[in-house]
Amino acid sequence: MQTTLRINGARLLKSIDELAQIGALERGGVCRLAFTAADKAGREYVESHMRSLGLQVRVDGIGNLMGIRAGREQGPIVACGSHSDTVATGGRFDGSVGVLAGLEAMETLNLAQVTTRRPLAVIDFVNEEGARFMPDMMGSLFVRGDLKIVEARGIAGIDGIRLGEDLDRFGFPGGDDFGKDPIGCYLELHIEQGPVLEQEKINIGVVEGVQGIRWIAFTLLGATAHAGATPIHLRHDAGYVAGEIVRCARRLSLEIEGQRATVGSMSFSPNLVNVVPEEARLTVDLRNPDAARLQQAEDELNRFVNQTAAAERVLVEREKRVDVPPVVFDRSMVDAVDVAVQAFGYSSMRMISGAGHDAQIMAKVCPTAMVFVPSRGGISHNIHEYTAPEDIERGANVLLHTLLALAGE
Amino acid sequence: MQTTLRINGARLLKSIDELAQIGALERGGVCRLAFTAADKAGREYVESHMRSLGLQVRVDGIGNLMGIRAGREQGPIVACGSHSDTVATGGRFDGSVGVLAGLEAMETLNLAQVTTRRPLAVIDFVNEEGARFMPDMMGSLFVRGDLKIVEARGIAGIDGIRLGEDLDRFGFPGGDDFGKDPIGCYLELHIEQGPVLEQEKINIGVVEGVQGIRWIAFTLLGATAHAGATPIHLRHDAGYVAGEIVRCARRLSLEIEGQRATVGSMSFSPNLVNVVPEEARLTVDLRNPDAARLQQAEDELNRFVNQTAAAERVLVEREKRVDVPPVVFDRSMVDAVDVAVQAFGYSSMRMISGAGHDAQIMAKVCPTAMVFVPSRGGISHNIHEYTAPEDIERGANVLLHTLLALAGE
Repeated sequence: MQTTLRINGARLLKSIDELAQIGALERGGVCRLAFTAADKAGREYVESHMRSLGLQVRVDGIGNLMGIRAGREQGPIVACGSHSDTVATGGRFDGSVGVLAGLEAMETLNLAQVTTRRPLAVIDFVNEEGARFMPDMMGSLFVRGDLKIVEARGIAGIDGIRLGEDLDRFGFPGGDDFGKDPIGCYLELHIEQGPVLEQEKINIGVVEGVQGIRWIAFTLLGATAHAGATPIHLRHDAGYVAGEIVRCARRLSLEIEGQRATVGSMSFSPNLVNVVPEEARLTVDLRNPDAARLQQAEDELNRFVNQTAAAERVLVEREKRVDVPPVVFDRSMVDAVDVAVQAFGYSSMRMISGAGHDAQIMAKVCPTAMVFVPSRGGISHNIHEYTAPEDIERGANVLLHTLLALAGE
Repeated sequence: MQTTLRINGARLLKSIDELAQIGALERGGVCRLAFTAADKAGREYVESHMRSLGLQVRVDGIGNLMGIRAGREQGPIVACGSHSDTVATGGRFDGSVGVLAGLEAMETLNLAQVTTRRPLAVIDFVNEEGARFMPDMMGSLFVRGDLKIVEARGIAGIDGIRLGEDLDRFGFPGGDDFGKDPIGCYLELHIEQGPVLEQEKINIGVVEGVQGIRWIAFTLLGATAHAGATPIHLRHDAGYVAGEIVRCARRLSLEIEGQRATVGSMSFSPNLVNVVPEEARLTVDLRNPDAARLQQAEDELNRFVNQTAAAERVLVEREKRVDVPPVVFDRSMVDAVDVAVQAFGYSSMRMISGAGHDAQIMAKVCPTAMVFVPSRGGISHNIHEYTAPEDIERGANVLLHTLLALAGE
């Protein structure tokens, strides 16, 4: 592979900066919650960018944007993209990098007067974050056909507004159906949102899949008791059981291959220094790239909770709030990313995405893979989110050359 | 010891019921927070009861009430008593039983026309609970000379009112100084506020002392991280360290003789299901009747917290909020209680108070002991607090006969 063709890093950073002005927060970071006026303005920026590059713009029924760059032949599109919506106090890189690097790749090809064999496209999915309207990854779910427009329009946001009202108010929906020109494969460049690449001092993460996720909320019901007057053997200490679950989560993380288990939220009631807690509520976030091991982790957790609670004579209520199976990306797509990385001589590692992405939804539509670039301190969904310019440039070059290889010159 | 003289259980229950009407809560229980109008009304009930029994009433500078029954001789008073203030949602037994059983004992002696050798007295201490004005056990601290009136008047309550204002408004303070007639010994009948007597099916707890108490508040400072994207070895999980502390508290309770360790309050920040906690706050309540073992528990806890936090690279801040040394009651007083219990043939056990009481303050003033009666379910500081009539009657008989033995017939 020749690597003489390179994206223009300064131009890409300029467009990232321009998009970050839309919905900019006073203290840094961005707020473009899905289907708000700021989100709409951001998408208009992307759309006009697409048009200025001569891309054929499509907007589907829920507002997903696709800018198609014609190839010498018709046929399945080699697509890349990501999303431009953000969480309420988001950074300027999450999502935007993937969309704008895709457009930068198109601009690079335009200037080099390269026409690929197969058509290329950049997609800007709506509402990847799910911060205002659940579910997250809504746009890709719609493309996949797993969310119908009637159903989507009825969804109420955190502000009580129905999605249908916003779609009408802001004129998001277009009449296009992406199905007319089928997407042949999908590649997503994204910031890692974790600390691994930075810690390992590696340029590029070649993403092989996305972890499966389960969220389990536990409510433990014991009995209040005087902390001074009640011997241990007469207690029904909900807080004690909660503490043991925290420890169990760590043990599962260490003992089961690929497992991550996190107790992120916890509350005691009545939450007084000298009263044995009557109730404890906590959540366990379980992630594993392997479905069987994820199930093993949940089984072991449940067994442990049942045993520990029974020994303390504490009742257990549990609610499974999220259950997303792991996704394994297409091997040849992942290999194609690796080839591009190696052509540039960038350091890289195979890795699994810990966070959710549109790519995991698209993986059931077509061969899919992802490219990660480092996140400073692993920080994301935060105004302090940061990825160095040279890392973004490297990621965009890998994107460009993988697309070229997939589309054929 | 002759046990023909017995208190009148029905009469005692009637007075408990009458006092419980003052500050009664709609759904049961009582609210007579210290130095409120309801508390004042409760104390007026007690005072008029004292007068109707012919006791000589004393009210000291902070409002402590003492009703003295003259003996054949002058000299140190054989005192009993407790408190009539309550927590905001208190029961009708905590404190009141000790005061009213003392008055019932006086009435029994009046009707039997018994004159003791030494004078007897019933004391109703102010603000034992500390629920509105800290410190708790304020009245007995004042009697002991460890709280000066100027200092007490400046204390702000949870409602922002200074104690001095309430003392003036309600006319609590009297001009008497209990020091004029020194208290020779003090005996307090109280509900257990724990589940031991009920569980062991025992009538009377002969209390040998009060546990030492330490409250330590920990703030653990880690770093937020994405629960999916952050490998365990790169986490600084404040919640994990908090969970380990809960487990450590349990271990200390099981391994150190007489130790009780409780994590009653706990909170995580940002407290989100998919974010590794940046901060955890928790309290540990340590109690042990033995000062050296209490110190050992605190030392082991601190060592464990330091090690566990360091391994997770989490910072620890700690604040010791309470540090009350254990109290050992006077051996001859405790033995005197035992003699009375055995004369009645009640089942009994020696025990240590887990909760704090005026008796632990008085123990430095004069020989002191306590008598416990069972609390159903160990519940106290709760509108569902309950002690059976026959248990109250037994406790009051033990009180009567121990006082008689101490005062001499």
